[in-house]
Amino acid sequence: MRESEVIARLRRIATAPEARGLLDDVALLGDLVITHDTIAEGVHFRPDDPPASVGWKLVAVNLSDLAAKGATPAGALLSLTISGPGKWEDGFLTGVEAACESYGLPLLGGDTIALPEGAPRVLGMTAIGRAGAEVPERAGGQPGDALWLVGTVGDAAAGLAQLTADRRATGALVDIYRRPVPQLEAGRALAPHAHAMMDVSDGLLLDARRMAEASRCSIAIELDQLPVSSAFVAERGRDLSARLFAATGGDDYALLAALSTELDPATLSLPSGTRVTRVGSLIAGKVSLSLTYGGEPVDLPKRLGFEHDIGHHRGRPAPPVAGGA
Amino acid sequence: MRESEVIARLRRIATAPEARGLLDDVALLGDLVITHDTIAEGVHFRPDDPPASVGWKLVAVNLSDLAAKGATPAGALLSLTISGPGKWEDGFLTGVEAACESYGLPLLGGDTIALPEGAPRVLGMTAIGRAGAEVPERAGGQPGDALWLVGTVGDAAAGLAQLTADRRATGALVDIYRRPVPQLEAGRALAPHAHAMMDVSDGLLLDARRMAEASRCSIAIELDQLPVSSAFVAERGRDLSARLFAATGGDDYALLAALSTELDPATLSLPSGTRVTRVGSLIAGKVSLSLTYGGEPVDLPKRLGFEHDIGHHRGRPAPPVAGGA
Repeated sequence: MRESEVIARLRRIATAPEARGLLDDVALLGDLVITHDTIAEGVHFRPDDPPASVGWKLVAVNLSDLAAKGATPAGALLSLTISGPGKWEDGFLTGVEAACESYGLPLLGGDTIALPEGAPRVLGMTAIGRAGAEVPERAGGQPGDALWLVGTVGDAAAGLAQLTADRRATGALVDIYRRPVPQLEAGRALAPHAHAMMDVSDGLLLDARRMAEASRCSIAIELDQLPVSSAFVAERGRDLSARLFAATGGDDYALLAALSTELDPATLSLPSGTRVTRVGSLIAGKVSLSLTYGGEPVDLPKRLGFEHDIGHHRGRPAPPVAGGA
Repeated sequence: MRESEVIARLRRIATAPEARGLLDDVALLGDLVITHDTIAEGVHFRPDDPPASVGWKLVAVNLSDLAAKGATPAGALLSLTISGPGKWEDGFLTGVEAACESYGLPLLGGDTIALPEGAPRVLGMTAIGRAGAEVPERAGGQPGDALWLVGTVGDAAAGLAQLTADRRATGALVDIYRRPVPQLEAGRALAPHAHAMMDVSDGLLLDARRMAEASRCSIAIELDQLPVSSAFVAERGRDLSARLFAATGGDDYALLAALSTELDPATLSLPSGTRVTRVGSLIAGKVSLSLTYGGEPVDLPKRLGFEHDIGHHRGRPAPPVAGGA
């Protein structure tokens, strides 16, 4: 049984309408939006990452899923594992507490267990949010929609690359890798208008492909339009190779939204400084993803993103998506 | 930082009223009761346990927490980790599916991640239930209350002891260890009347001590009254040593309820065959736990239960409880 079969099996088990066919990042129960993310040492974080940054990140990645549904944080349950003397966990909780305070997420409960000596740490959080009037699905994108990105891409991946080269690396990109910021306010502003919305956690191309699959359409992305930060440009440049790196790096926690072309998101009340950029279009036709750079078609890279996350119980595509070019 | 300090720290972070001071197994959000349990290979289950029984157990232990609050299952999120080729996970999901079907628990979502090769499996579930009119806390016990137990104790621990002696052991006790039954209907029947209620998962004595701590009173348990099954008696006998084994074994998923002495739970509409037994009393005075057998005081054993579960975010006692005799 391959991993994709495990996900297919989960889908067959999860038949309730609230499960949304496991095609979304969240479940809906009444007016509550519920999500769960688990992170593992050696997979989602480095053993030498400061524990407070791991705690912050666990909270932020869960809040990012709430942001993508326009939900307001209501509470969280923490699954804490303890291995060793507890110093690491102390630092980890400092990060959890800081992020919970920053975003008004009350910690309501959870579970704390001991792990066998030497086991990689596995930490989980269930975040619960109150839904707004509209909860955009991943599947609601319509041909003709414009594809917008809230935030930037590539910073965290560039920071991780710096740390991989030198574990004592510091700077803006490392900070962004360690302390992602969930786009909660922007998500709430966009949710009533978005035909489809999701967060970009595993790489823009991989997540855009997931939106194309869920919405049964084609998505075209203009790589030269990708929003990248000046810190990113200073580190990796702005050529096609840098843009493909940014589009596949993951850990961005940006929002990806399919909006009617009649809507200019700059007219919405977004938090000041929010970067919102049109990066492509949804197109009628077979499920696919295509790229251009300077108006010219670009082949899809082999790796569209970071697939260590086997699925937010949304599964992987049954048939591979046809390359766009 | 010791484990108990980690829990103390969690309590300081979790200040929202819905967290119930982390003194309970669940959080309350509106009319929803939410709980999370994580189980780890080598800690909560044996590597050679059939994977379907591990899946069943993960669902059942979460449902047992809902049962203790009189809640009706509404949905669950699964945190699934995959290590290896997926055969184990296939079996595990068979157990999850069977338990979800048996108890009407829709699987709504969750997260699936890969674990590093060779890492012990860590599996989590968040279960959500709809609260009834009353949600008994662990802290509501009143001096003068009678202490009742729904179900039996000792079976699972006796089954685990059989498996530890011979990994191919079979029989009723092994079955109960592998397939615990959450007392959902009994929990719903008792919840409107219980001053305090909790499930017995870590050992009757340990969990009763937790109720005494939360309710700020003393609890006296009559060991000769403990409900034990005929399979248990056939395996371990019925003497004091057998009863202490049953009272400290854990994995029982019985319910422990503090009821007014005026209430006879036999008059409630419990599912037929439900064993409900008065096992002791709540007494005014300093937080403590005391035991008798045949009317004579018995020293508290050193180990009151299974403390691998550091806490259902309910923490461990600050001061050790004074022995009763």
